[in-house]
Amino acid sequence: MNDGLARLKARLEEIQGLDAISLLLAWDHRTMMPPGGSAQRGRHLALLQRLGHERLIEPETGRLLEELAPLEDSLDPASDDASLIRLARRRYEKALRVPPALTAEMVRVAAESMPVWVEAKATSSFDLFLPSLERSIELRRRYIECFEPRDEPYDVLLDDYEPEMETGDVRRIFDEIKPELMTLIAGQRDGNIDDSFLTGDFPVERQAALAREVVELFGTRPDTWRIDPTEHPFAAAAGIDDIRITTHYYPNRLDGLFATMHEYGHGLYEHQIPRSFAHLPIGNAASLGLHESQSRLWENLVGRSLPFWRFFYPRLRELFPEQLGDVEVERFYAAVNTVQPSLIRVYADEVTYGLHVILRFELEQDMINGRIELRDLPEAWNRKMRDYLGVEVPDDARGVLQDMHWASGSIGYFSTYLLGTVMSVQIWEKATEALGDLEGLVEQGEFAPLREWLGEHVHVHGRKFSPQETLRRATGSTIDAKPYVAYLTRKFGAPVAA
Amino acid sequence: MNDGLARLKARLEEIQGLDAISLLLAWDHRTMMPPGGSAQRGRHLALLQRLGHERLIEPETGRLLEELAPLEDSLDPASDDASLIRLARRRYEKALRVPPALTAEMVRVAAESMPVWVEAKATSSFDLFLPSLERSIELRRRYIECFEPRDEPYDVLLDDYEPEMETGDVRRIFDEIKPELMTLIAGQRDGNIDDSFLTGDFPVERQAALAREVVELFGTRPDTWRIDPTEHPFAAAAGIDDIRITTHYYPNRLDGLFATMHEYGHGLYEHQIPRSFAHLPIGNAASLGLHESQSRLWENLVGRSLPFWRFFYPRLRELFPEQLGDVEVERFYAAVNTVQPSLIRVYADEVTYGLHVILRFELEQDMINGRIELRDLPEAWNRKMRDYLGVEVPDDARGVLQDMHWASGSIGYFSTYLLGTVMSVQIWEKATEALGDLEGLVEQGEFAPLREWLGEHVHVHGRKFSPQETLRRATGSTIDAKPYVAYLTRKFGAPVAA
Repeated sequence: MNDGLARLKARLEEIQGLDAISLLLAWDHRTMMPPGGSAQRGRHLALLQRLGHERLIEPETGRLLEELAPLEDSLDPASDDASLIRLARRRYEKALRVPPALTAEMVRVAAESMPVWVEAKATSSFDLFLPSLERSIELRRRYIECFEPRDEPYDVLLDDYEPEMETGDVRRIFDEIKPELMTLIAGQRDGNIDDSFLTGDFPVERQAALAREVVELFGTRPDTWRIDPTEHPFAAAAGIDDIRITTHYYPNRLDGLFATMHEYGHGLYEHQIPRSFAHLPIGNAASLGLHESQSRLWENLVGRSLPFWRFFYPRLRELFPEQLGDVEVERFYAAVNTVQPSLIRVYADEVTYGLHVILRFELEQDMINGRIELRDLPEAWNRKMRDYLGVEVPDDARGVLQDMHWASGSIGYFSTYLLGTVMSVQIWEKATEALGDLEGLVEQGEFAPLREWLGEHVHVHGRKFSPQETLRRATGSTIDAKPYVAYLTRKFGAPVAA
Repeated sequence: MNDGLARLKARLEEIQGLDAISLLLAWDHRTMMPPGGSAQRGRHLALLQRLGHERLIEPETGRLLEELAPLEDSLDPASDDASLIRLARRRYEKALRVPPALTAEMVRVAAESMPVWVEAKATSSFDLFLPSLERSIELRRRYIECFEPRDEPYDVLLDDYEPEMETGDVRRIFDEIKPELMTLIAGQRDGNIDDSFLTGDFPVERQAALAREVVELFGTRPDTWRIDPTEHPFAAAAGIDDIRITTHYYPNRLDGLFATMHEYGHGLYEHQIPRSFAHLPIGNAASLGLHESQSRLWENLVGRSLPFWRFFYPRLRELFPEQLGDVEVERFYAAVNTVQPSLIRVYADEVTYGLHVILRFELEQDMINGRIELRDLPEAWNRKMRDYLGVEVPDDARGVLQDMHWASGSIGYFSTYLLGTVMSVQIWEKATEALGDLEGLVEQGEFAPLREWLGEHVHVHGRKFSPQETLRRATGSTIDAKPYVAYLTRKFGAPVAA
């Protein structure tokens, strides 16, 4: 191997290693750590981030990238090495623009804001959170100023979560989706689905056994995953053979099962990154949006489908006979697909979910562009909830304070939830085209073909390409809202079988 | 603060942070990690170690230490800052002598040897392990050559575990102890203690609840500890407010309870390091020996004492009425103090334990000095087991292969177990002198005075001083085998109350 390339790889492997260690520490923070360890954990995470950042922006990185430019030009741009050099250059050039003092302040303010948000949410007091939000937005504006002017300032933030995607692109997609969702919601008949049996007695130990069973059913390599309970479900890959997903078991509801399927999708993406470059920065998912496409695919297109429940419902009924003994599969399927506008994004159904995201995407731009006074944010939030979902927000805890993203400084993140959902349908349809009767396979409990197809057509690329190029290679098309709208219309536009 | 000192502290805080993160990763490896993550975890641990080592030996460290020499001379040598500079200089000078390539090879060979040892132990095949041991000993010889010649080559290895202690010092102490232990063992009457009730049905969940109860009884700050089950118990401090101990619950025995008390002692040491310097290298325990003095103190001087059981036995009997309902406290006390020569160090009683350690200490020197052919090690082991303990070793799994230390490259470590035990008695006696009726306090279930005394007289110093200076400050004396021998003779020389 070219000596410069070997040295660049050694350097990037260190940075990737520090990132993976940070993920493990963050997982531990949320699952295992005694609460007393919190302050020190924050300092350790900041240390790892700073060491990785320092390594990345050392002059030697720039020198190696310059030295490797001719090699990069001579390689197939789709090769692992060319992709690695391209990605490293992109990260290096972005990192160089941001003064370490600003990065450190962003980390510090996020750490300080989180407990303030927790308290503000607990007391439903937006005023308490407002100063933190003001500092956070101010820091994002300074961050944006580190970069060349873009069409819209928000582009800079979005690029950190969905690389090479522009605000205008997202807006066009969301503008196409919004009226369709509102029409679908308007068309829902109220109260004609009895889902009362979804509330009751679902013993937590049986739910935990069920989570393990479902993950095993969908498929993993042996001895490589674990599942733990947390307040908010998430997935963390400490490595391709060390996948940790979490879920939340409510003793009276089955939501944790769908969360498990969702996190399985995230975990599988990381699990199927090619071993040959998993230790390098191209060994990550292409973007948060593509990551979400995988979680939504397993949660919704598999996990909320009638074929899946035709296969799996007998087992579920066996586990919870008191609750489900009298309920036929079609009624169960209809109940877990009830469309009902509600206050909280993370509990929203497939149809209303998109509007929760669009609302946040719009408000974030207004905040960044200064089109809204931050103190007026609750009012703007509540107005949009009324306009889009017909829901009255009773307090800020169930309104503008519900998500932790803004407290943690993750501004620009929300749109990836809906972008991912849109892409999940494109990927599902391409998989169906490739595998033939995919629904039939699901109905037989055969998940290996889907899992392997995703591995070979999506996960195989890691972060070698932009998310849109990755999607194009997998499906032949970049992002397109039409399959998603058509899927929702098929599933929810006509009366659901009940 | 002096600017150079501030910069040295920032640098050392990074190194200490990387060490603490490594401890967390090692804990996770042994408690939580899916087995598939093993290879990557090894690479991540090696990365953290290398980054810390590189930071330590950077020329800037040397420059700062030189710049700070006058400041160090002007400070009280017992001050935190002088102690920090002194310790940093010691670590820097040691680290500079060892080529990074050698360190890396030692880490790599240890990682490769561990699974070989596991397999060798499982099949009781020393021949399988021999090549690994040969490489490991060869690497230690090369390591020793990096340093100025000492009185004995083994001094160099010992110094990594018990700083500033010499092989000759240890040998003199052990030579004093060895005949006393052999005399005590010879004086034990066989078969007159009925401990059959210690084997039976001890439900694991109740043992786990008991472990939490005992740790709470001994005392910790709230929300700062966790206890998990592992194959081999250990303690890991991810931070002074993030203490993780592990134990092993055997469904038919109570050994896990004593392991919990042992690990509590280790955990408490780290827990009571002063907050003002816990983030710096002086915020560690002074040595492995002193660490062990704390674990042995809580396990033996508290946990195997009659006053403790007079207080706690009713609770134990309440938890395990089927096993202990008919057993009086004196019989229980006698049973958990049975002296019986046996094969396995980690199950050995207070009297025979020391001979297990002395045997290893002697063999390690013979290996390093080339006084023994490595292939003859099992024979030498078995002969010493016969000579010291009168025990016939049936196979190498229960003989020379029983401990993981040599596989992991920890040569020079074993003696600290006995040094710590010796020091535990000195510390206990000093605490008794200071607190008055310490046994009486224990019998009333009052552990705060002991815990606080240890904090104020031992833990308070962290790693500011050498272990012997730390012991001298706590007790007025450096290491002395006489109190230990006298304690064992008092407890085991006369017939135990039965």
